[in-house]
Amino acid sequence: MKRLLITGAGGNLGRIARARLGHLAEILRLSDIAGMGPAGPGEEVIPCDLGDRAAVADLVAGCDGILHLGGVSVERPWDEIQNANITGVYNLYEAARAHGMPRIFFASSNHTIGFYEQDQVLDVTDPMRPDGLYGVSKCFGEGLARLYHDKFGQESALIRIGSCFEKPRDRRMLATWMSPDDFVRLVECVFRVPMLGCPVIWGVSDNDEGWWNTETARLIGWRPQDNAEDFRAEIEAAAPRPAPDAPESRFQGGKFCAEPIHQG
Amino acid sequence: MKRLLITGAGGNLGRIARARLGHLAEILRLSDIAGMGPAGPGEEVIPCDLGDRAAVADLVAGCDGILHLGGVSVERPWDEIQNANITGVYNLYEAARAHGMPRIFFASSNHTIGFYEQDQVLDVTDPMRPDGLYGVSKCFGEGLARLYHDKFGQESALIRIGSCFEKPRDRRMLATWMSPDDFVRLVECVFRVPMLGCPVIWGVSDNDEGWWNTETARLIGWRPQDNAEDFRAEIEAAAPRPAPDAPESRFQGGKFCAEPIHQG
Amino acid sequence: MKRLLITGAGGNLGRIARARLGHLAEILRLSDIAGMGPAGPGEEVIPCDLGDRAAVADLVAGCDGILHLGGVSVERPWDEIQNANITGVYNLYEAARAHGMPRIFFASSNHTIGFYEQDQVLDVTDPMRPDGLYGVSKCFGEGLARLYHDKFGQESALIRIGSCFEKPRDRRMLATWMSPDDFVRLVECVFRVPMLGCPVIWGVSDNDEGWWNTETARLIGWRPQDNAEDFRAEIEAAAPRPAPDAPESRFQGGKFCAEPIHQG
Amino acid sequence: MKRLLITGAGGNLGRIARARLGHLAEILRLSDIAGMGPAGPGEEVIPCDLGDRAAVADLVAGCDGILHLGGVSVERPWDEIQNANITGVYNLYEAARAHGMPRIFFASSNHTIGFYEQDQVLDVTDPMRPDGLYGVSKCFGEGLARLYHDKFGQESALIRIGSCFEKPRDRRMLATWMSPDDFVRLVECVFRVPMLGCPVIWGVSDNDEGWWNTETARLIGWRPQDNAEDFRAEIEAAAPRPAPDAPESRFQGGKFCAEPIHQG
Amino acid sequence: MKRLLITGAGGNLGRIARARLGHLAEILRLSDIAGMGPAGPGEEVIPCDLGDRAAVADLVAGCDGILHLGGVSVERPWDEIQNANITGVYNLYEAARAHGMPRIFFASSNHTIGFYEQDQVLDVTDPMRPDGLYGVSKCFGEGLARLYHDKFGQESALIRIGSCFEKPRDRRMLATWMSPDDFVRLVECVFRVPMLGCPVIWGVSDNDEGWWNTETARLIGWRPQDNAEDFRAEIEAAAPRPAPDAPESRFQGGKFCAEPIHQG
Amino acid sequence: MKRLLITGAGGNLGRIARARLGHLAEILRLSDIAGMGPAGPGEEVIPCDLGDRAAVADLVAGCDGILHLGGVSVERPWDEIQNANITGVYNLYEAARAHGMPRIFFASSNHTIGFYEQDQVLDVTDPMRPDGLYGVSKCFGEGLARLYHDKFGQESALIRIGSCFEKPRDRRMLATWMSPDDFVRLVECVFRVPMLGCPVIWGVSDNDEGWWNTETARLIGWRPQDNAEDFRAEIEAAAPRPAPDAPESRFQGGKFCAEPIHQG
Repeated sequence: MKRLLITGAGGNLGRIARARLGHLAEILRLSDIAGMGPAGPGEEVIPCDLGDRAAVADLVAGCDGILHLGGVSVERPWDEIQNANITGVYNLYEAARAHGMPRIFFASSNHTIGFYEQDQVLDVTDPMRPDGLYGVSKCFGEGLARLYHDKFGQESALIRIGSCFEKPRDRRMLATWMSPDDFVRLVECVFRVPMLGCPVIWGVSDNDEGWWNTETARLIGWRPQDNAEDFRAEIEAAAPRPAPDAPESRFQGGKFCAEPIHQG
Repeated sequence: MKRLLITGAGGNLGRIARARLGHLAEILRLSDIAGMGPAGPGEEVIPCDLGDRAAVADLVAGCDGILHLGGVSVERPWDEIQNANITGVYNLYEAARAHGMPRIFFASSNHTIGFYEQDQVLDVTDPMRPDGLYGVSKCFGEGLARLYHDKFGQESALIRIGSCFEKPRDRRMLATWMSPDDFVRLVECVFRVPMLGCPVIWGVSDNDEGWWNTETARLIGWRPQDNAEDFRAEIEAAAPRPAPDAPESRFQGGKFCAEPIHQG
Repeated sequence: MKRLLITGAGGNLGRIARARLGHLAEILRLSDIAGMGPAGPGEEVIPCDLGDRAAVADLVAGCDGILHLGGVSVERPWDEIQNANITGVYNLYEAARAHGMPRIFFASSNHTIGFYEQDQVLDVTDPMRPDGLYGVSKCFGEGLARLYHDKFGQESALIRIGSCFEKPRDRRMLATWMSPDDFVRLVECVFRVPMLGCPVIWGVSDNDEGWWNTETARLIGWRPQDNAEDFRAEIEAAAPRPAPDAPESRFQGGKFCAEPIHQG
Repeated sequence: MKRLLITGAGGNLGRIARARLGHLAEILRLSDIAGMGPAGPGEEVIPCDLGDRAAVADLVAGCDGILHLGGVSVERPWDEIQNANITGVYNLYEAARAHGMPRIFFASSNHTIGFYEQDQVLDVTDPMRPDGLYGVSKCFGEGLARLYHDKFGQESALIRIGSCFEKPRDRRMLATWMSPDDFVRLVECVFRVPMLGCPVIWGVSDNDEGWWNTETARLIGWRPQDNAEDFRAEIEAAAPRPAPDAPESRFQGGKFCAEPIHQG
Repeated sequence: MKRLLITGAGGNLGRIARARLGHLAEILRLSDIAGMGPAGPGEEVIPCDLGDRAAVADLVAGCDGILHLGGVSVERPWDEIQNANITGVYNLYEAARAHGMPRIFFASSNHTIGFYEQDQVLDVTDPMRPDGLYGVSKCFGEGLARLYHDKFGQESALIRIGSCFEKPRDRRMLATWMSPDDFVRLVECVFRVPMLGCPVIWGVSDNDEGWWNTETARLIGWRPQDNAEDFRAEIEAAAPRPAPDAPESRFQGGKFCAEPIHQG
Repeated sequence: MKRLLITGAGGNLGRIARARLGHLAEILRLSDIAGMGPAGPGEEVIPCDLGDRAAVADLVAGCDGILHLGGVSVERPWDEIQNANITGVYNLYEAARAHGMPRIFFASSNHTIGFYEQDQVLDVTDPMRPDGLYGVSKCFGEGLARLYHDKFGQESALIRIGSCFEKPRDRRMLATWMSPDDFVRLVECVFRVPMLGCPVIWGVSDNDEGWWNTETARLIGWRPQDNAEDFRAEIEAAAPRPAPDAPESRFQGGKFCAEPIHQG
């Protein structure tokens, strides 16, 4: 690719992508609301509010691929979520449509299905059960991406990201963790496979424990290699086991299921 | 019920409900942006923009049931759809939560799955494939309703309405038509069944032709009785058969599949 | 048939069968622990404890068909359930095996799946979720019947009976009711169809409201004709609607789900 | 339609079609190897061996629809089946492709799945289990029709015909019978529906007894109205019940399952 | 855990557990009818007949977890199976309910589905097809465990054990073998995972050959590591291949499918 | 085995089999239309046209196993495909039936399902969608094999071969490649497993990228070990990426989907 746009470049996943995915394109165009620091070699830094239609259009122009990590990624008041994750996603897909339909990696979330219990194995075709406004906004995004695929041929990878950190941080992440290395390989696969279409794929490492049938990862040739199990002793030593009926123990979405509706 | 709120009371479905469902409650509270005329006996008329949070809260207060027919029901520019069908639905569910969680009939749409072809039989659990921004907004609504059920116990009937008019108006409606009589019985069933939960139900008459497995209608005891087939001769005489590869012939969502993204 | 054995002949279903199914065989052999009155023309009356192996063997000898309605049919202390529904069913199938394998109508129950919620549609292949010891005993019976089919070719109809009374008695029975007329036709179908095998069939009338996919009824040519809906007004007038989170409103098994484990 | 081709016009189904479907087109072009008698008004009579490529091409030229009932319809030596049902079907689809792709009603058969037992309910998507060379030839035909749909857009209705006679003739036909009236309505539906695609549909009346989930009939608006049950008494009086392990009692394909491979 | 109860401690699996799972609890409470030898350090030895309700209640009191390996594990006369596997399991679950509901590892069996043929891949949700009275007793146990989960919140792992020995002993075990090492890791996983629920899991090593979709093993983070394939040469050298239509070759339950009903 | 027949011995797969599978039998009987060279030690070389019934009968006589790789394996004119892949397969199964029903490895093909898009994961039970006459001929072969299993007990492995070459040759083969080593192990597994039945198995290596749920490979204990990913750099360097809407990029069957019907 000549130019790859990374939204949310100042966030957790965005910083990983910035540091390690430069080889995917001649230029990385980095965007976030703030906090990205100066551009390095081969980088363009363009602050942008996803809710600003015109700004998003300018941002997307000239890009051959979009790694869409931007927006709100936790439970927040509705107006914030709506601006970034609903208006923002609409703006992004309209911009892509206007500018040659570059392939999009859409960071969806396990919180689209967070209200399933932890003793069930899910397929990507199971009906959604979001665990908060954030999760609902990601259901919206998956629906919009599917529309743009069916109507215009826009390709998107709908990646339901588990928990991507250096290491798993609590017991639930022993099941939901995706290592940064696996994330990097995942992005490479999305932009490499000849035919992408619009598949849904669980963004999770090859953890011993898990709730998701990861069969669709092979559609893009992604084979995760890390395993949260390596951190079990550390995790279990760090904190007592939560009660069995705590949301963290019971639901796939964990604590999100117990979050209130945040007021602005 | 003491008071049943009908949103979209000035629209097509709303007028039917107003005229024929007065027996469901002592008072019908009617709302729309405009165009409802004066209140009759047993009626309250309250104009309201669904995008206005405070107004929606006032509207819902004191109601024991909500027949939510309001919002945009065709393909329109994004801002209109977002205001009424996304912000508006969030406002409605928040208002319901604040006011005793009255049962909600949520008018969803076949346009949540409009991009399936007409030679497939769909279950309510099949993944959504919306055919426009309107359809995506209804996907959002179904997701939000499910969230409020899983998190707070809010009951909703998610009715994927086909085409509700006096008579079917074109060949596609021979499959998608729901008669006003069947609609009236459907609303009665939703507010009568002891346990509702949050089921998805196809809102379609007992047409000879059809694409949807209507098994879930029995969850609420609804058995549609009308049949678009009675109007076939009339329909076929009125207009030539569309080409087999026209969107109207090919996709379940019909012409919506060929609509552009409307610009404001 | 020359001789049809009816177990549980003194019970609710047994009395219906005795009165109305005499045409199925030259002789009805009626059995129960007690309470059957004297034999009429074409009848044999043989009291029997199903837990008594030798007595059951004698009972079955010479019969060409078995309508097994006997045993405990409500939540009771374990020892009672085990004697009649576990030991008793084993005794019955062993007796049938020893005596020419007459076809068996096995009265199973909706309480094998009572813990599913009322907003789900079940197939007969869905995993069982019994709602009490009684329900577990019926799971056992279905398993034993399947074994005798796979191992020895014994034919059984596994009929998951809903609620069979003259009329539905409460709101839940608007979904679960099977009319006596439909029951009579059902028994006729089981003993008439050339090939029975070992199918599971929901024993429920053609009620508007319902939770079960009744497709397998056609395997034996049974088409229920009655509809609990005819009694709705009467039912709704008789008692207030139960709370939405009462077991009767929430679970398919109704009040059984809230029964304790009975102590002897 | 201007001209509808009926192959197999001299056979059982063909005679029904000839007598009762003249209203579908200005001209019925009738074809068979022999035995059709002279052409009546609005008829063309063209004898043809389906295995003769050039003759089939001529036969199809100028037709707007094809009701393909021709070929072998029972178990016969391989060479006969191959000539008419394999070579012949290839010839027919090639001819259709060369001549404007008229819509095709393809008479497939329940013998594509005849080895399933009679206590199972089948969907049209279940894997095929043919019960003889005839059944395998129909599996071939369904595959070829699907290919011509996916590759060229050719529309076909793949109708798995049960047993079409004036009345059911044995006990198995109580489940598999399709009345001539229902057959006539079925053909009308196939040629009337705007979008056909390439669906598989069970060709069976609304019999009380049956083994097939007939949901897909609604794709074309066909609602069978007759019921083999009306003939049960007659059937049961005419012949003793076959043994429970006879192929007629055990398999959906009945006696075909016990046919040998016929030698030429 | 402070105290882990191991039933069936004198049996094959029990001896493995006793020798290798001491680290799971401060005290191992070992129970069997007989044959356990004296208590070692950190052990309590308590002989017990599972059919004795009071004794089982005493046995369970004070335990934080139960590894239920006890009962009959082969085809035996009904009375033996009923006493240990039906009465006994009821006693165990009642005792657990009375004593704080310690988590239960329930040793179920592949003989719950033994009558499926060896060319099918099974999911844990497929309907049960037991291959003997022993298998039926395990169907009962799974049903009872599910009831206690749905009604009381009791957690159980329902482990359908294949064949657990030092090495596979015949050709069928090349598919069904679970190594002692994998068994030990499996028990650890069951008692370690924060949320268990009531899942069904195949108890089988990572054998090349196999018939079961082992996806649910990840629910508890269990990843088997051994492979019966390592023993193929040895097995094949030891005995001739059984005939293809021998039960051992044909059914998943192997020879159990050919066992008679044992008489007492 | 005493004698293993390899058809298509002069072709690509046949040469691999000849060179590396001699240990499976005392004698390899090699057959093709031509091009096999002289017989080596332990070999018999018998040229044969599969369309010649008598010749095929002679060929099969005396063999204990058949590795059926013969016939046409690309898109060719109908008469060629019919002679080798339809007449030829009928001849082969009839010959096997006449000569003790030796187990058959039937080389089916991914072209039976070639018209599915590359963003779908297929099970072996999904309906077939052939991508050409060659694919349809393989659908026929799978159907015929199933018939001979259900009717006569003939065992066959229906192996849907992807692309078997020394190395993958284009981007699509990164998903469909089966290495010669994996092919050799696959044949060993087919002839080694005690109970084969008639399963369908994807013939594909353990590639990172892929579209097929390979669960059924374990039915015969086959665990592929090679991975096309090792050749990605080489493949990507060799040729530019095909357009995203090229058949090679879009359909599982690749270029076959764009092949015309070849004329003789």
